[in-house]
Amino acid sequence: MIKIGIYGYGNLGKGVELAIEKNEDMQLQAVFTRRDPKSLKIKSDAAVVSADEVENWKDKIDVMILCGGSATDLPEQTPRLAKLFNVVDSFDTHANIPKHFDDVDKAAKESKHTAIISVGWDPGMFSLMRLFGNAILTDGKDYTFWGKGVSQGHSDAIRRIDGVKNAKQYTVPKEAALEAVRSGKLPELTTREKHERVCYVVAKDGADKAKIEAEIKNMPNYFADYDTTVHFIDEETFNREHSGLAHGGFVIRSGKTGENHNHLIEFNLKLDSNPEFTASVLIAYARAICRMNKEGATGCKTVFDVPPAYLSNKSAEELRAHLL
Amino acid sequence: MIKIGIYGYGNLGKGVELAIEKNEDMQLQAVFTRRDPKSLKIKSDAAVVSADEVENWKDKIDVMILCGGSATDLPEQTPRLAKLFNVVDSFDTHANIPKHFDDVDKAAKESKHTAIISVGWDPGMFSLMRLFGNAILTDGKDYTFWGKGVSQGHSDAIRRIDGVKNAKQYTVPKEAALEAVRSGKLPELTTREKHERVCYVVAKDGADKAKIEAEIKNMPNYFADYDTTVHFIDEETFNREHSGLAHGGFVIRSGKTGENHNHLIEFNLKLDSNPEFTASVLIAYARAICRMNKEGATGCKTVFDVPPAYLSNKSAEELRAHLL
Repeated sequence: MIKIGIYGYGNLGKGVELAIEKNEDMQLQAVFTRRDPKSLKIKSDAAVVSADEVENWKDKIDVMILCGGSATDLPEQTPRLAKLFNVVDSFDTHANIPKHFDDVDKAAKESKHTAIISVGWDPGMFSLMRLFGNAILTDGKDYTFWGKGVSQGHSDAIRRIDGVKNAKQYTVPKEAALEAVRSGKLPELTTREKHERVCYVVAKDGADKAKIEAEIKNMPNYFADYDTTVHFIDEETFNREHSGLAHGGFVIRSGKTGENHNHLIEFNLKLDSNPEFTASVLIAYARAICRMNKEGATGCKTVFDVPPAYLSNKSAEELRAHLL
Repeated sequence: MIKIGIYGYGNLGKGVELAIEKNEDMQLQAVFTRRDPKSLKIKSDAAVVSADEVENWKDKIDVMILCGGSATDLPEQTPRLAKLFNVVDSFDTHANIPKHFDDVDKAAKESKHTAIISVGWDPGMFSLMRLFGNAILTDGKDYTFWGKGVSQGHSDAIRRIDGVKNAKQYTVPKEAALEAVRSGKLPELTTREKHERVCYVVAKDGADKAKIEAEIKNMPNYFADYDTTVHFIDEETFNREHSGLAHGGFVIRSGKTGENHNHLIEFNLKLDSNPEFTASVLIAYARAICRMNKEGATGCKTVFDVPPAYLSNKSAEELRAHLL
């Protein structure tokens, strides 16, 4: 049994707890929280422990799965916990990956642990698909589309506008852009051509809706470069229809071989629950780094470094006989 | 530069030659043929060598790519050549993979070479997608569809019928089956429900077309379990419209997490040229096993054993910065 710890019990941490139930070679040992452990109810009967006491669990956990946010939690937590445990995180601030990698690599090498960062679907599975596409169809171009799904950052930006009570923003890939890519014509697509933004907003009583709508649509970086639609709805409708965490997206590699032969490699995801799917990917990579650590690999890895067989609990013979 | 040899110069061998041109870290050293080398014109200016002299090239080639057929060529050639070279093949007789693996593994281990078998898109990329799907969505089911594309075996079977001059058979996935899978309902699909078979036949003068059509449709294993359509066309139309080697297919994993959340992972390929795409995959894995051999790995591998980063000629830093 692989003994798992969960560090942080938000949506992702809860997803990891659920994912462990679906993997018979895994066992949840403890959930670590910065809240008062007594105040936290979890689904399973694992221990709930204060984050301050994590060091006491050094020898009781094979892999710690970090479920904090990329902005402030993971840059500090992953290097620190890599000194004590094998760790997995879902760090997704693309621009800061090289620095985060170096910090985690140093900590994990010194303590002889194995770490893996930026696991999930993007970064994660989508990264793998970009790599496969680039390596196989070297003369080509890849395209990543996100959605339809909720962007937390964009929803937050709307909620900060004066007069807004609640808001949810969906990123939606444009069908015409997907079709242009699938045509094999290698289009150059602008930001506006690739995605549109659809917002559902609950306004406070007496708020100026026209003003809110204009503020959203003209917001630099977040909305100004996109076709944005704003729907005002009442709170009841909002809670009923917009509380889900569905997401998805597409990675398409379009490339040529020989005398103008076109090829398309398309990977797409349709996810009812973004955190539960991400958690399922984290768990598979937890298994992999546990095995890599036993084999003597130390330091920081990414999905690019992991032999796919290591994600599975089946033997090499079984995999060759049934999945190859 | 990685020095490549091509063993067998049919459609796949020609595809490998074209793929090497698209990879700046590779160089074609020689093409080995069972035909008279003087009779063989190749596209590049590499050497054309009799297959009988392959042993003389032992130290001049980093990876030999075997481009023979799975029925009789590869079971004999891959183990034999793995004694002399690092080798890549596209062995695709699924039922015989375990035996082929053992034969190649023994030869490669004894000679300290690295071999990889069953590379291409199925087996190959599709196998990887089945593995990822199984490892991530453990509570689910995967579905593989092939086509639209030509099945060589089925085309050959039609050509053996009395009165048939030429024939091509397309395997076509049924749209209704794809939609049923994408609905997340985990359907149990029969052979007939998944694919249909569409045949284009040139009959000999005076042949009994009704008899040919009945013979095709009732042929056990090949057609009897499928909805089969037969089109009789003239030779000119046949040569104009049915000489391509396009293919493709789908791997879809449908699975559940938590409280009934559905997730779909879909991978699909649309290929203008089946052999040229397969060749492009072979080349990427040739790069990988060349590196694995330098690092001391020996014996037989499959796509399940190769860290994805090894497929690329970019450094780990570049991959993390640009593709992760």
